[in-house]
Amino acid sequence: MRSKNQRTGSGEDRLIARYFKPLVDHPGALGLEDDAAFIRAPPGRDLVITTDAVLSSVHFFADDPAHEIARKALRVNLSDLAAKGARPLGFLLTLGLPKGISQRWIAAFARGLQADANAFGCPLLGGDTVRTLGGVVVSITAFGSVPRGTMVRRRGARPGDLVIVTGTIGDGALGLELRRKPGLGRQWRITRRQHCELVTRYRLPQPRSAIAELVRTHASAAMDVSDGLAGDLAKLCRASGVSVSVDVARVPLSKAARAVLAKVPELMQTVLSGGDDYEIVASVPRAKLQRLRRLAAAKKVVVSEIGVVIAGKGEPRFIDRKGNAIALTQLSFSHF
Amino acid sequence: MRSKNQRTGSGEDRLIARYFKPLVDHPGALGLEDDAAFIRAPPGRDLVITTDAVLSSVHFFADDPAHEIARKALRVNLSDLAAKGARPLGFLLTLGLPKGISQRWIAAFARGLQADANAFGCPLLGGDTVRTLGGVVVSITAFGSVPRGTMVRRRGARPGDLVIVTGTIGDGALGLELRRKPGLGRQWRITRRQHCELVTRYRLPQPRSAIAELVRTHASAAMDVSDGLAGDLAKLCRASGVSVSVDVARVPLSKAARAVLAKVPELMQTVLSGGDDYEIVASVPRAKLQRLRRLAAAKKVVVSEIGVVIAGKGEPRFIDRKGNAIALTQLSFSHF
Repeated sequence: MRSKNQRTGSGEDRLIARYFKPLVDHPGALGLEDDAAFIRAPPGRDLVITTDAVLSSVHFFADDPAHEIARKALRVNLSDLAAKGARPLGFLLTLGLPKGISQRWIAAFARGLQADANAFGCPLLGGDTVRTLGGVVVSITAFGSVPRGTMVRRRGARPGDLVIVTGTIGDGALGLELRRKPGLGRQWRITRRQHCELVTRYRLPQPRSAIAELVRTHASAAMDVSDGLAGDLAKLCRASGVSVSVDVARVPLSKAARAVLAKVPELMQTVLSGGDDYEIVASVPRAKLQRLRRLAAAKKVVVSEIGVVIAGKGEPRFIDRKGNAIALTQLSFSHF
Repeated sequence: MRSKNQRTGSGEDRLIARYFKPLVDHPGALGLEDDAAFIRAPPGRDLVITTDAVLSSVHFFADDPAHEIARKALRVNLSDLAAKGARPLGFLLTLGLPKGISQRWIAAFARGLQADANAFGCPLLGGDTVRTLGGVVVSITAFGSVPRGTMVRRRGARPGDLVIVTGTIGDGALGLELRRKPGLGRQWRITRRQHCELVTRYRLPQPRSAIAELVRTHASAAMDVSDGLAGDLAKLCRASGVSVSVDVARVPLSKAARAVLAKVPELMQTVLSGGDDYEIVASVPRAKLQRLRRLAAAKKVVVSEIGVVIAGKGEPRFIDRKGNAIALTQLSFSHF
């Protein structure tokens, strides 16, 4: 881990020694005492690498708890690894902090990071700390491994395969709306508990690492749903050269999301394209679906069939209860 | 590479397709069309990983040319790989851009990145684009490889080894001063050309990739000089459990730096601890020095002997022409 120090060790040095060294046990991390780390994929396995950054006021709110920011930053990367069928190996952290951030904040951040590094078996390998002119930037590169040549890709969906998603869709996007607009929960007439559930889904994604291996052995194509089911499925379709038809009534919703939609049906747009789900969408050959659902259930992950892969290139179609295609004004969240 | 798109592909999608896909030829990058990339260290080699971020107004000026910002971001990582004796394999890019950045800026950035990716044999493997609330953030994770177990570390310097540095020291730090304070060049009475040389050294580091393999086979410990020779040597000493004595008169200086120091001798402090050198400092067993210098010279890299490793833990000592230890008020640049 890079650090910049003065005679007695700079703030940055002390910061690393105090908060991040305790997180390190991987031998390749060299105790965060070098400029680089090294890593080795287990014999016969490929290394899978992914990188995702989260920035304050863009991916989280500046006053979100520091430990949750750390966990979200790691989890969005773990979600990518899970969707690729990869087992986590470790991660590099680039942490950009504004001047004057408190030791307490940093301690909480490190604590959150350690909790999830342990929970998901994905140790800190190294990183870089830099100063920003304002706001927190957390960029993580995560490493995983798969048996050689078996990384699940966006490409590979075949006509006739079924489309599945894990967990529930839309909670994160609705949670973000609630977080943005105080009083919205009252307007939606949801309970305090439902409010909390939706906001928590936004703040703390649940990467489906538990079924990464099942995704690898069952899915013909997969990706994580981070920018909206509609837009992410469109990407999977493009990469695979196919289209899909999604039965919107089968898209799995939480009780809280159903309560919101009962009140404001137009929010189905937000559910389908809002993003921040961190679930897995995949195409699965028909013959493999029941086994996948059963084995995933044993890992406490619900797998729902929501549609079918169709021959020919094209945008995904979302069909409502009456058999009509829903026109989505926007398929997914876009930063630009 | 992650992207967020709308019906017809978002700005982010188009941005990636237009500017970054042309950079990709590594098979593991999957044409930037997936959430992850994969990479394999060649047989019998370890993967070396390093990460470094550069931020506008912290590591570069907002009005620096975009192609130079891209090249600096990649080069500071290549410098780390070179100091570890590693051969580049590829890199991941996280690019944070503020709203309203021009297509022209992005095109120039991509052009700079491609130029150096080609020049240093370090292809783009994937990445993430995000929006920032202001300013550009470039975080790069670079991958290299070394024969198994041979990564050069900060630990390993032995009493009696000689201390060497590559190239010249202090130019980047003086260039930064010049960039910060218009009119300073006149005050220092340096020529326009010297002014330009120093500023260029700040804006565009010269990673010593050409001698990475020589560092690996000759150095007992090494690191890149990015935060100041004094502070970086202190880190190498701490990791190795030794001290060093540096003969300041032997620290290699460019003509431009010598001209500045002739006018303002106090700037020796800046030269020794200012940072932004991106040279390599290493300890080398005496028997290996001549061979290293000769082979490095053949690669057009000057290697200068500047001191000796001393038994016992301690801060590095900088000795002037008269044999007196120089008291440095600060060993290196610190962000915090």
